[in-house]
Formats: sequence, structure tokens, C-alpha cells
Amino acid sequence: MPRISEARRQARRDEILRAAVRCVVRSGYQGATMAEIIEESGLSAGAVYGYFASKTELLAAVADSQLGVLDDVMADALADGAVPDPADLLRRLTDHVRKRAAGADGDLTVVIVQAWGEAVLGGPMRDLVAERVGKLLDGWTEVVRRRQAAGLIDPSARPADVGWVLHSMVPGYMLMRLNVRDLPPRRYLAGVQALLDGPPREG
Amino acid sequence: MPRISEARRQARRDEILRAAVRCVVRSGYQGATMAEIIEESGLSAGAVYGYFASKTELLAAVADSQLGVLDDVMADALADGAVPDPADLLRRLTDHVRKRAAGADGDLTVVIVQAWGEAVLGGPMRDLVAERVGKLLDGWTEVVRRRQAAGLIDPSARPADVGWVLHSMVPGYMLMRLNVRDLPPRRYLAGVQALLDGPPREG
Repeated sequence: MPRISEARRQARRDEILRAAVRCVVRSGYQGATMAEIIEESGLSAGAVYGYFASKTELLAAVADSQLGVLDDVMADALADGAVPDPADLLRRLTDHVRKRAAGADGDLTVVIVQAWGEAVLGGPMRDLVAERVGKLLDGWTEVVRRRQAAGLIDPSARPADVGWVLHSMVPGYMLMRLNVRDLPPRRYLAGVQALLDGPPREG
Repeated sequence: MPRISEARRQARRDEILRAAVRCVVRSGYQGATMAEIIEESGLSAGAVYGYFASKTELLAAVADSQLGVLDDVMADALADGAVPDPADLLRRLTDHVRKRAAGADGDLTVVIVQAWGEAVLGGPMRDLVAERVGKLLDGWTEVVRRRQAAGLIDPSARPADVGWVLHSMVPGYMLMRLNVRDLPPRRYLAGVQALLDGPPREG
């Protein structure tokens, strides 16, 4: 095989991943076959297998690339010792979800739901999802800790539990907009805010 | 074919559905084959096809039976003009989720995640999920309306939007406990309550 530059290798790998994303959006995680992905990529079978030894390996890389997209949003929100507002952070995360939903390769949030489906059946995808989603959960726990320190959340609550609840809202958002009806972030945010504000206070 | 009583017909149909559930928990929605389900049921192919003309029809019945399980909890909470507490209702729904997770045929919430995965790919499952989940969403909207009427939620918020947010927490709960780590209902409830109570008030 002729040697190609690292940049060209990376570009070709991305091309294969994007072809695989389009196949998963169309056929599902279990339904997408290597033959379909190879055809979609326009490359030879040998070329594709040169990057990924199996469908499992390829689809794990697809899932990993999609599950990691919210990490940056969380890292950014926590930078410089900020005390993030949960509703604002949820808005940023849901904005990001919507950007992924309007991707050039199709609705990338479908790939995430497919990865969940594979994870709940066990196997290697479970560990990958647990690790990725667990990292976001750690971020939420830190958000709660900082808000407790700032007197904004009851200090007797366990940060990990409150973070768990906040984090569960993001997959909930993805699923609801895919399966029931869409809610623009502005209105989602208003709904969250109405809950987080608690009962109206006496004027 | 000899005629059998309606009760016996129903019992046999349930038996087939339970076999299909076990196969979906094991192999996934796309991975489960009619041959696998027929073998699992212990019935003849002719008998199974006498109840369900296709895998799609059978798995739609499986999804419908699993997605409908939370309806009763919601209907009960809204009975007699009650003003349900969202945290308490979430606790009841999550208790129910956990009961399904410990079912004799395996973790039935896996079937629900599989149905979501199928729904996001489009096709008949999308309509079924949208209808079932939409009905629960209507219930949550009514919960919010009643709490607004009782002065417990900001009356300027749109009930459907706040209901949408509350409802998104249930699929979020299911996924988090399957894919990241379990949180006992008592601790989940404490996390929800810390958020719904809003910032600590001046003593």
C-alpha cells in the first residue's frame, strides 16, 4: 500500500465516518451493513477495512464522535470557575443538539439514540456510552457543587443526585423532539425556568 | 384450524408477546427475527403467524404493550381533580420504571429504548411512539395547568412547555439508569426536589 500523509489519512477516516453516519441515520445501528457503508463512502472495501477492522469498531468510532460533541459545551461553561446557570447551560446544550440535528449528513442525534439502543443490549457499546455520558454527568455534578457554594441550591442536597437529574433532561430533550414534537430552545428554556424558579413568591 | 375460546386466544397472544419481549431484550428490535421469536415461544410458526402477520406487526404490539404502562400511573394521579406534585408524580413513574426493569421476562425498559431507536428511523413505529408518548405529555400539561391554577407554578408559563420539560425527565431517567448508573427513586426524588424548590429562601 502506498504511504499517504497523516493529514490525508485523517481526512479519509473522517470521510468513512461520515458515510457510516449517513447509513446509521438511514438504516439504524444494527441494520447498517459494512457493504452499505463501503458503497456510501465511494472507497474500496480494502481501503475501508484498512481503517476499521470490523463494523463494531467502525460504529464505535461513529458513536464516540457523536457522543463527545457536548463535552466542549460543558467544559466551556465550567471554565474560569464560573457558576453556570442550569437553565442557561441546558439552553446551550439543546442549541447544540439542534445544530447536530441539522447536520449535512442527516440528523446526527439519531445516531446517538441508536448508540443508546445498542448500549442497553450490553457489549462494548455500553462501556463507551457509560464513559462518555458519565463524563457529562461529572460536569453537571460540578455545576451543582458551585451553585451550592454560591447559595443557589439547597446545600443539603447531594450534588451528584441533582446533577443526575439535570443531566437526564438532555437525552429527554433529544428524544422528545425526535419522537413527539419539537420545542424551540427559547420555549424549552422558559419551561425549565418556570420549574427552577420554584413557586411564585409573595410580592 | 380448531376454534379456541377467546380467553385461550388472548392467553396465547400474551405468550407470544412475552417471547418477543425476551428476544428484543436479548437481540434488539432489528436483531430479533421471527424464527428466534417462534422458537422462544415454543409454538409452531403457523400458530404465531396466525396472531401476527409480520415481525413489524408483532413488534409494534410489543412496543405498544410496553409504552402504555405509564398511562395508568398518570390517569391515577389526575383522578378526582387532584393537583399532583411533580416530584411525587416523577417518583411514582420512576417506581414503575423500576418495576418494569425487574420483570420476569427481563428488563422491559430495554424494549422501550429499542422502540425509540426504531421510531427515530421513521416508519410505523414513529407514529405509535408519538401517540403513546404524546398522551403522557398531555397528562403532564394538565398537571402544570392545575398547579398554575393553585398558584404553585408561574401562571405566565405555557403549560405545554413546562409539561414537555417534566415529561422529558422520565425517558432521561430510564436511559441514565440503563447506561450510566442507577439512582434509587428516593435519591432521584431528592435531586428533583432540590431543583423544584428553587434557591434557598432567606430564613
